[in-house]
Amino acid sequence: MAAAARLAARGRPLSRPNPAVGCLVVRDGIVVGRGWTRPGGRPHAEAVALAEAGAAARGATVYVTLEPCAHRSDRGPACSDLIVEARPARVVIGQRDPDPRTCGRGIERLTEAGIAVAARACPVSRDSLAGYLARAERGRPHVTLKLATSLDGAIATAAGESRWITGPAARAHVHSRRAMADAILVGGGTWRADAPRLDVRLPGLEPRSPRRLVLSRTIADETVETLPAPEAIAGLEAVQYLYVEGGAQTAAAFLAADLVDRIELYRAPIVIGGGAPAIGDIGLASLAQAHGRWHLAERRQLGSDTFEAYRRQAQDQPRDGDKR
Amino acid sequence: MAAAARLAARGRPLSRPNPAVGCLVVRDGIVVGRGWTRPGGRPHAEAVALAEAGAAARGATVYVTLEPCAHRSDRGPACSDLIVEARPARVVIGQRDPDPRTCGRGIERLTEAGIAVAARACPVSRDSLAGYLARAERGRPHVTLKLATSLDGAIATAAGESRWITGPAARAHVHSRRAMADAILVGGGTWRADAPRLDVRLPGLEPRSPRRLVLSRTIADETVETLPAPEAIAGLEAVQYLYVEGGAQTAAAFLAADLVDRIELYRAPIVIGGGAPAIGDIGLASLAQAHGRWHLAERRQLGSDTFEAYRRQAQDQPRDGDKR
Ligand SMILES: NC(=O)c1ccc[n+]([C@@H]2O[C@H](COP(=O)([O-])OP(=O)(O)OC[C@H]3O[C@@H](n4cnc5c(N)ncnc54)[C@H](OP(=O)(O)O)[C@@H]3O)[C@@H](O)[C@H]2O)c1
Ligand SMILES: NC(=O)c1ccc[n+]([C@@H]2O[C@H](COP(=O)([O-])OP(=O)(O)OC[C@H]3O[C@@H](n4cnc5c(N)ncnc54)[C@H](OP(=O)(O)O)[C@@H]3O)[C@@H](O)[C@H]2O)c1
Repeated sequence: MAAAARLAARGRPLSRPNPAVGCLVVRDGIVVGRGWTRPGGRPHAEAVALAEAGAAARGATVYVTLEPCAHRSDRGPACSDLIVEARPARVVIGQRDPDPRTCGRGIERLTEAGIAVAARACPVSRDSLAGYLARAERGRPHVTLKLATSLDGAIATAAGESRWITGPAARAHVHSRRAMADAILVGGGTWRADAPRLDVRLPGLEPRSPRRLVLSRTIADETVETLPAPEAIAGLEAVQYLYVEGGAQTAAAFLAADLVDRIELYRAPIVIGGGAPAIGDIGLASLAQAHGRWHLAERRQLGSDTFEAYRRQAQDQPRDGDKR
Repeated sequence: MAAAARLAARGRPLSRPNPAVGCLVVRDGIVVGRGWTRPGGRPHAEAVALAEAGAAARGATVYVTLEPCAHRSDRGPACSDLIVEARPARVVIGQRDPDPRTCGRGIERLTEAGIAVAARACPVSRDSLAGYLARAERGRPHVTLKLATSLDGAIATAAGESRWITGPAARAHVHSRRAMADAILVGGGTWRADAPRLDVRLPGLEPRSPRRLVLSRTIADETVETLPAPEAIAGLEAVQYLYVEGGAQTAAAFLAADLVDRIELYRAPIVIGGGAPAIGDIGLASLAQAHGRWHLAERRQLGSDTFEAYRRQAQDQPRDGDKR
């Protein structure tokens, strides 16, 4: 399922408004078909993987990160029908589809056709579908808050200098993360101070530059969309993944509203001392309240900088099912 | 030499005022003698290791982190004489002794006696002798600055609550680090706010609680020694290792005076937001000035907290010799 989730990542974010799904067809221990959701959302991952597998799908095992769809549309047949036709012996599903048009019905159709189905609550599948699930379950995009800080947690010097805290490898990584988002947001202060381009400057990925937003009560600038409050992200229908790049007040506003799912921290081995703190007041009443909310999910070295991702520890974590 | 340096660590800090040295005697690939400097500084590591090796030292290789001493004293014979007597084939030395009573003379005496000597500038030896070398080369103790912060670099909430940011494993680690220091220091603000005990509360290590200092221009408290300025650490004759525990102004004062050799950072996976920043103003003129000064030397997980040690990147790093 981890391999299927890695395939799914290739579909992100261009699969929008559909989820980025990954699918593998495995026959006698050999991968005979691989698919991920194509740009625009079609064809679906299962259709691509089954087409590649052809006759070899018969008797095989299909791994798919999300429950196959059950709704027939003008744009193509339902994946559950396609699978029934291909006659695999078994389908392993990483996550049930919360979409009311599918929820449980995809599984039902497979089972009725005599195919063995294992539906799991698989964390890697859930992770790879985070944006789709945030929209479906919480009616808003998945939000990543990015920060680039010194060892002492400053995002700029006292004079406001913030270029550059991190090195070229970290900055390239930020651009690759932008390319995975549907929209990027900065606060009005950062917009005014840094006039950031907020595009993807990686060879070949320039067309992946996402929608640009600024959090502001005052800005009216036709080169950028204005979001009047963090809660307004609910209205960004086509956005599954929102990437918030600061600054400190904006970070605090999203955190205080409990709208951050993931913190991505780039830390340079430098001391600023008396600089601008990374995060403004979030209204914390006591230290006890701060604990148990974040969980280290990933860490890697990017040149001399350290990248760390922290995942929100919350009600929306799978608590049952398969915890492999 | 790494094994000898690990032995040396056992001597720290009770070897004061002598350096904590480690010594191994190896014969035909088998360790026949191990020694480290005993409390009070005597016997020396070489004497202990050679006594353990006995006749097996003949023709063996002696690894020692610091050049064997050449000065005969009332408290015991010179180690270079002891080695000559034991007749090993070879002596590998990790670091020359800057002490003018020895410098080069220990090596000379061995060479004159026909023993092969390899004197290296070995980073692990240098590291394990950091306190002794700081005193000898810079006339002051080796200084470690310890900080316990949130992800956003706060050492307390806005209301001043700092107990506890980190968990029990990190706090026990701090106590083990205190036990390795000759003295601990906090600032007057922390002394007044937290009334810290600054002792070692680990079973069996209570007697290792170091000398306690407070950085202050005003405090006159007979339960603690007062240091009037960071530069005054030069006068702490018997102190090889000083452990500075904050707060923010104190951290800034030591950093601004360029008196910090190592930063030990404990980071909890929590967001405080608008808390008290870890480090006060250090007079940084530009970001460019901040780069290239610190180098990640160690990282480990302590429960859900991360421990990181950063070493000062400076003129006092060995630039020549053996870099194994
Ligand atoms: N190192 C990094 O990762 C990084 C990243 C970004 C920025 N920075 C630095 O951070 C500094 C800017 O940070 P900052 O904290 O001053 O500014 P900021 O967070 O970028 O922007 C603050 C502005 O955001 C808007 N805003 C904040 N909360 C809001 C809410 N709840 N509803 C609606 N609008 C809201 C307001 O805009 P209006 O006033 O327009 O209404 C406010 O003035 C700059 O020095 C920049 O270089 C560093
Ligand atoms: N999380 C952690 O690791 C950690 C560690 C320590 C403290 N803390 C927190 O940090 C806060 C205290 O920090 P702080 O920055 O306010 O205080 P601080 O650094 O502990 O102490 C400041 C005081 O140190 C003295 N001082 C500073 N610079 C000096 C210099 N150059 N020469 C002589 N004396 C100097 C002055 O003392 P006088 O006024 O007496 O002259 C000054 O008022 C507390 O909330 C505490 O809980 C957290």
